[in-house]
Amino acid sequence: MTSATVSRLRAELADLHRELITWGLVAWTAGNVSARVLGADLFVIKPSGVSYAALTPESMVVCDLDGRLVEGELSPSSDTAAHAYVYRHMPEVGGVVHTHSTYATAWAARGEAIPCVLTAMADEFGGEIPAGPFALIGGDDIGKGIVATLAGHRSPAVLMRNHGVFTIGADATAAVKAAVMCEDVARTVHLSRQLGEPTGIAQSDVDSLHDRYRNVYGQH
Amino acid sequence: MTSATVSRLRAELADLHRELITWGLVAWTAGNVSARVLGADLFVIKPSGVSYAALTPESMVVCDLDGRLVEGELSPSSDTAAHAYVYRHMPEVGGVVHTHSTYATAWAARGEAIPCVLTAMADEFGGEIPAGPFALIGGDDIGKGIVATLAGHRSPAVLMRNHGVFTIGADATAAVKAAVMCEDVARTVHLSRQLGEPTGIAQSDVDSLHDRYRNVYGQH
Amino acid sequence: MTSATVSRLRAELADLHRELITWGLVAWTAGNVSARVLGADLFVIKPSGVSYAALTPESMVVCDLDGRLVEGELSPSSDTAAHAYVYRHMPEVGGVVHTHSTYATAWAARGEAIPCVLTAMADEFGGEIPAGPFALIGGDDIGKGIVATLAGHRSPAVLMRNHGVFTIGADATAAVKAAVMCEDVARTVHLSRQLGEPTGIAQSDVDSLHDRYRNVYGQH
Amino acid sequence: MTSATVSRLRAELADLHRELITWGLVAWTAGNVSARVLGADLFVIKPSGVSYAALTPESMVVCDLDGRLVEGELSPSSDTAAHAYVYRHMPEVGGVVHTHSTYATAWAARGEAIPCVLTAMADEFGGEIPAGPFALIGGDDIGKGIVATLAGHRSPAVLMRNHGVFTIGADATAAVKAAVMCEDVARTVHLSRQLGEPTGIAQSDVDSLHDRYRNVYGQH
Repeated sequence: MTSATVSRLRAELADLHRELITWGLVAWTAGNVSARVLGADLFVIKPSGVSYAALTPESMVVCDLDGRLVEGELSPSSDTAAHAYVYRHMPEVGGVVHTHSTYATAWAARGEAIPCVLTAMADEFGGEIPAGPFALIGGDDIGKGIVATLAGHRSPAVLMRNHGVFTIGADATAAVKAAVMCEDVARTVHLSRQLGEPTGIAQSDVDSLHDRYRNVYGQH
Repeated sequence: MTSATVSRLRAELADLHRELITWGLVAWTAGNVSARVLGADLFVIKPSGVSYAALTPESMVVCDLDGRLVEGELSPSSDTAAHAYVYRHMPEVGGVVHTHSTYATAWAARGEAIPCVLTAMADEFGGEIPAGPFALIGGDDIGKGIVATLAGHRSPAVLMRNHGVFTIGADATAAVKAAVMCEDVARTVHLSRQLGEPTGIAQSDVDSLHDRYRNVYGQH
Repeated sequence: MTSATVSRLRAELADLHRELITWGLVAWTAGNVSARVLGADLFVIKPSGVSYAALTPESMVVCDLDGRLVEGELSPSSDTAAHAYVYRHMPEVGGVVHTHSTYATAWAARGEAIPCVLTAMADEFGGEIPAGPFALIGGDDIGKGIVATLAGHRSPAVLMRNHGVFTIGADATAAVKAAVMCEDVARTVHLSRQLGEPTGIAQSDVDSLHDRYRNVYGQH
Repeated sequence: MTSATVSRLRAELADLHRELITWGLVAWTAGNVSARVLGADLFVIKPSGVSYAALTPESMVVCDLDGRLVEGELSPSSDTAAHAYVYRHMPEVGGVVHTHSTYATAWAARGEAIPCVLTAMADEFGGEIPAGPFALIGGDDIGKGIVATLAGHRSPAVLMRNHGVFTIGADATAAVKAAVMCEDVARTVHLSRQLGEPTGIAQSDVDSLHDRYRNVYGQH
């Protein structure tokens, strides 16, 4: 049932937006999470310009895959078009997150990918976290940049130039996890490079770590 | 009614001073928010040297536009003269915030403007965050420096040399938002520059982002 | 009685995992604490991929010293083999902690030991915090690297290359304390080196501080 | 009455140790606050090696001015001798704080004073925050270094080489405020210097700011 699914996703998104605060990924209202409604051409997303303290399951809004408001009393996030584009072009994606998290955005401001020099990066990102193009808000340019950049990488995160981070996942929780880990490794690699050059990890080791992580880690 | 307005502003300011703590903008008692009383030549401001934990709506004080205490049992903030000068000379301003937030003040200690290299800066500040002059406390020098510097910029924030940040807004919430975003972008641009040079954003893109943000973002 | 001991250790570990959050050592689920069951060839450890908010005494799992699950409904941490190796080869160790804490991991990404330039380092670590080898997860390589590196040092912490930190202690609390102090000194020495070179401490002073700390500090 | 005074100071110190946590000045148990008992040759201080969560008014201990335990069931802080030396030689001091706060200790590890480039530093410290000598714990060396260094400065804070910060105040709250402000300006000046050289403040302006702050600021 779609309406039960939507209710569950509204509650999940309210919780997940709190995770953005818990892990220090957002300032004021800048950051949003969405979740695809499985079995319907819809997704649920944060309303625009609402403070995290005021977010409730009820305040979330539902959009179609063109980003048009379908259900909810508030305007959808100003980043809705980018989320919609990802859902239209990446059917395997069930959740999308956008933040301006500090260290990741510092890399993005230089348009520079984060090199894979940590085993935790090999695990979660399977290699570097790539940098995408500069794109203006308001049309499909951001969405196109996200999809085109992710197509060439294992990484569920992309650093959009001069802007911030978009992450994807099989569901919204996985996308939030990718956003948390992206900021964590962005910070660690930044700090490591401040005092020298981190040593690389052999590609075969990166491959082996990524494969093991996807198939062994967690509860099965 | 002025007294109902003042009561509401006292409560708002108590909440907004908590936001300064939430977003990590202040240490000990260094930071203050004020709000103009619409329809009267008055503003409400934090008392001097009172800890944030001890601040209540009742502890806020009311001053006239020359910064003289009109209502309240405590002395007004030692920065009251600067707030008053802004209200006298910028009739469109309804709220003023002053902090020594860390990264913004690090730029201020070098007397250096923060270049606009993030779309979030183009949105909120419409360009660089400018640096104002060095000025001693105790007269109108700080206020004059704020107003003169802001006159030449779209930015609602100014970095006063060797001192800290002043932000303005249509109301106190908008000024607090500007203070939060100012520290956020000051930190991101600082970090980005530590490992290279952030790429610029074309002026036409800055203009377009700023225009869209002021006219489209949020709930209308 | 083993089962009473295990119950107590389960509760202790739930508390100690909260300390990892309190002191900012972990992101998402990346970090784990274990405790040896005295009088039995067993240890208690965090389950794999469970969020810190969801951790309870009951969710902890018990493994034998080969890292095989003995008691508990969830899979043990993916780092269990490394903990097990340490318990097998270091009989004096009663607790092990693993984190990717930010500053320590930044040193580890360069494969660089943290020099002993703080009296607090001399106290807790008795000299530098050494860097261990790169090792892949999944066998005994990480455990071997930890034990071989610690063998040549007084430090209860080792920085595993491109990976993160392992710490040991007489009990789990001592290992968590070492993890907290490791990140604290990793950060301070990192920052100090950013603006120049910290001055060294004479080896005789390091020795004297470490000896005093182990024999005088705390409640006896 | 001494016993009522001691009871009041015990409660104050329990609150003030919480401030060390609130403002991020301490890791694990490393940091302590003491308060002189006016009218008696005594001071109250934190017990050694007790976690901040476990500290209560009752757990504080009372020492004489030679640092010998007079009242309390736990051993006094291992830094008690340094506090005692300060109380013996600086009769105007009513409170002493010791921390290893991160940025201040980063300056201390280089043995480098923090230059006065912020108006907030001129206010609170009246000039630079000086660096004191390296000294071993266990005798009067640390206390001598503190007193000798502070004698030549207006600053209530001193950076002890390779060690950490000691601050003094007319009472324990003032000493805690100095510790909070010391870390705050240590961080801001550190960051400012990472990207260039902060501009200085003329000595006459430093003098004027410090004089005004001591005589005008706060509630009178």
